[in-house]
Amino acid sequence: MTELQLPTGFRAAALAAGIKPSGRTDLSTVASDADCTWAFAGTRSTTAAACVTRNRDLYGEGGPVRALLVNAGNANAATGTRGAADNADMADALGSVLNVPQDGVLTASTGIIGHLLPMDRVLSGIEHLPEDLGGGADLFAQAIMTTDTRPKTASVTLSTGARIVGTAKGSGMIHPDMATMFAFAFTDAQVDQQALRDAFPAIVARTFNAVTVDGDTSTNDMALVLANGQAGPVPLDEFLEALEGVMRNLARQIAADGEGATKLLTVRVSGARSEAEALNAARTCCVSPLLKSAVHGNDPNWGRVIMAVGRSGAAVKVEAMKVSVQGHPVFAGRPLPYDDATVSQSMKVEEVVFEIDLGVGEATGEAWGCDLSAEYVSINADYTT
Amino acid sequence: MTELQLPTGFRAAALAAGIKPSGRTDLSTVASDADCTWAFAGTRSTTAAACVTRNRDLYGEGGPVRALLVNAGNANAATGTRGAADNADMADALGSVLNVPQDGVLTASTGIIGHLLPMDRVLSGIEHLPEDLGGGADLFAQAIMTTDTRPKTASVTLSTGARIVGTAKGSGMIHPDMATMFAFAFTDAQVDQQALRDAFPAIVARTFNAVTVDGDTSTNDMALVLANGQAGPVPLDEFLEALEGVMRNLARQIAADGEGATKLLTVRVSGARSEAEALNAARTCCVSPLLKSAVHGNDPNWGRVIMAVGRSGAAVKVEAMKVSVQGHPVFAGRPLPYDDATVSQSMKVEEVVFEIDLGVGEATGEAWGCDLSAEYVSINADYTT
Repeated sequence: MTELQLPTGFRAAALAAGIKPSGRTDLSTVASDADCTWAFAGTRSTTAAACVTRNRDLYGEGGPVRALLVNAGNANAATGTRGAADNADMADALGSVLNVPQDGVLTASTGIIGHLLPMDRVLSGIEHLPEDLGGGADLFAQAIMTTDTRPKTASVTLSTGARIVGTAKGSGMIHPDMATMFAFAFTDAQVDQQALRDAFPAIVARTFNAVTVDGDTSTNDMALVLANGQAGPVPLDEFLEALEGVMRNLARQIAADGEGATKLLTVRVSGARSEAEALNAARTCCVSPLLKSAVHGNDPNWGRVIMAVGRSGAAVKVEAMKVSVQGHPVFAGRPLPYDDATVSQSMKVEEVVFEIDLGVGEATGEAWGCDLSAEYVSINADYTT
Repeated sequence: MTELQLPTGFRAAALAAGIKPSGRTDLSTVASDADCTWAFAGTRSTTAAACVTRNRDLYGEGGPVRALLVNAGNANAATGTRGAADNADMADALGSVLNVPQDGVLTASTGIIGHLLPMDRVLSGIEHLPEDLGGGADLFAQAIMTTDTRPKTASVTLSTGARIVGTAKGSGMIHPDMATMFAFAFTDAQVDQQALRDAFPAIVARTFNAVTVDGDTSTNDMALVLANGQAGPVPLDEFLEALEGVMRNLARQIAADGEGATKLLTVRVSGARSEAEALNAARTCCVSPLLKSAVHGNDPNWGRVIMAVGRSGAAVKVEAMKVSVQGHPVFAGRPLPYDDATVSQSMKVEEVVFEIDLGVGEATGEAWGCDLSAEYVSINADYTT
């Protein structure tokens, strides 16, 4: 496989600092040769981690950034004032070795909650990061993984030759609320800071906030776009559409690689009163343990779709509602006759699609999840000890 | 075991009408010799079943009731206008054989969603119900079960000699929103209709709405109290406190008998800004698949408590927050040292208790759930087929 290069002017480095017990790479950075405009979305959790809080503060200040520093294996969340100081020290250390201001370094930590970072190893690792600063996206995508079974990248080349390269990680504790844990996109396109920031929330709502694995919103979720302008300007509409494509691709990869997942669950809602209600109904289906279990068992138990839509609170006219499973109509205001064995057989594939018409409006929305397997329980019954 | 008698003037009957494939009892009634005042809470689901909708309409009309008719094995939800007519026909049929008005018969259906009731069997069963109308609470509690592994009853005798007998069912699709699927309490105390209705929502919020098994709100959830006055008046405060005790007892039984559960999970929140936020934070912990998996594995992974509280949106001051597991303090603004093996050992019991102080106010709240086991998945991967 050819190594996926980062856009012009971005360079990655990764090493094993000894944060993950497995000895895999766990400390990484993507640095830019030039100042970047950027957009950010962080978790709405009221117990957000130090990295999210600090990035949000920097976002409010509005200055340019030059580098992103990520550690995996430790979330540095619920670690008190010491944890916040450690987070700032990490950024400071990378800023020093890269010769950029501390405020130009964003941070992201992922892994177990409630443990202090092994700062001696982290700081020693940061010292060595610049030595290898010529890596591409794959190296970086690998180093940010925790329970992921595979790295997640997506890229697109725009009409002007500018590129967008996205990376993401996440497998459990996935029910992002304003971003996911983590999605990072890098582009050499020149993009206006304010235009990017204005467009970003809606893109996140339709991509990362439409993904769920287990309904558990993380303390460390974040989505970031860094644009260093090295490839010059590009029409804004084209850029935003391409960015949404990259983010949608990554969002689907996260769902498909959910903890214990054997298949991707896609729910498309139409006929909703608003896009927000369509997305909410679709995502509530994707988070339902009952529907997820049925998908795991290839059981076309569409009654659980009716339940999940009802639970979502989205406006619906049940008598005008329609549901199909893998293209087979099963409900249209009343139960429709269908062959159980045929529909069940059609679910034995890598992606199972439910289509739901709420019968009250014109808005649509799509969300992604995965099936629920016994493997999910065994992965999570024994993570710390 | 002695049969649990219903309060004076209430009589139960149950039989196997052939709705459940297992051949177990699935059609039952509790009838009162005298008119009852009553209070009701039904699911907030926007796809609520016919029984919930009809009961809600009757509740709005405010007349007295005489009987409750329940079928298990079929939820009669998402069954269209035919399903609504079937539901009314059931009530009408029982009214005829008991010689009470149709509007004096409440209905409750539970089981699979999206299948029409086998009305020939249901109506034939209703014809035979009065023949056995002398049964107690156990008979009734047994007949309303679906995936429950045991019947759930609770009772109390008041100072005046009046009694409250409660029954409940529910094991999966348990995340009630204004009631659970199902909780029925019967009392021979004489209780003012308006006083009962005024007090009921808050009691439901602290009991059934504080229970969760899987986060999935049912289409058929309901809680009902019927008071026939046969034992005369009782001080209102005493009655309401006793009623809440019965409902709390039943709520805990539902959580402990959650699908695939091996233990009860109790989360007590203090220091919250409001009771609603305390209950929300507690219940969000109980619904978290990650925390539930950790409890299953006896893993004191309290970081998932921090995550769940943050996800709930409840106001919290992390630096003043405290968490304990089975009485062992593990977090107080920062991670505390503790012996992993000791705390893990203390979790190998039937009830695991987390106590959380949010550090921002005086309000408290308690919620109940259960652990998540591989058994939950196998129960639900193959329910219809």
